[in-house]
Amino acid sequence: MASTWRRTEPLDEAESLRMLGSARWGRVAWSGPAGPRILPVNHSVVDGSVYFRTGLYGSLVEAATGGAVAFEADELDDRLSVGWSVVVIGHAEQVEDPAEVASLFGRMAEPWAPGSRPVLVRVTPSQVTGRRFSKE
Amino acid sequence: MASTWRRTEPLDEAESLRMLGSARWGRVAWSGPAGPRILPVNHSVVDGSVYFRTGLYGSLVEAATGGAVAFEADELDDRLSVGWSVVVIGHAEQVEDPAEVASLFGRMAEPWAPGSRPVLVRVTPSQVTGRRFSKE
Repeated sequence: MASTWRRTEPLDEAESLRMLGSARWGRVAWSGPAGPRILPVNHSVVDGSVYFRTGLYGSLVEAATGGAVAFEADELDDRLSVGWSVVVIGHAEQVEDPAEVASLFGRMAEPWAPGSRPVLVRVTPSQVTGRRFSKE
Repeated sequence: MASTWRRTEPLDEAESLRMLGSARWGRVAWSGPAGPRILPVNHSVVDGSVYFRTGLYGSLVEAATGGAVAFEADELDDRLSVGWSVVVIGHAEQVEDPAEVASLFGRMAEPWAPGSRPVLVRVTPSQVTGRRFSKE
């Protein structure tokens, strides 16, 4: 990726999803009415899908109803000479069934804060790619 | 953004660009022919624009010729209880004038590695937004 990283090696899908699940933060990108948009979110990986929460009125609701999204998480640390990045291309939709929402909240990394972010978005991956970077 | 952050406060444009310039890594999102795409890049901020380099044949060349992009960088650290995120909406184009390219490379944070990433992309912001997160 950058000149500071000498070697890159691909991660397979299972490894990519595992790395993605180990990260607390990712960024969701979508094509809004006025062009590409991107926002950081707190995410979880459950059964191979990516989940995040949002409010009812934020621009992220566009991503939840717009269909196609790209999601990225990474850990890139020059000092430790290690890094990885995972990109998920997929379809985003709101999870609306109350029983399913309750079950998923119980399995997500972050506790559910009542009332604050009631929209649960699932990204079902159609493509998962990952790369590991190192200096050696 | 997440339930772990109690307070968020907006950053003004100058402060947002300063934070963006302090980060080594960002993520560029664009609308490709098959939908939204996102990739991490090593970036620099020079005179209020965001610059990154890419190869001749990678998918990032789409972003350099496609016009509208969204760019995000952040530092989100739960342990230190601090965090910020900056999003730039703008227009991407390849910088082609050799004198301008040479001048910019001299002012970018990363040294220029000859031959490896010959395409220099400038993102001219039309909108810069930033937020600072804290737990207190």
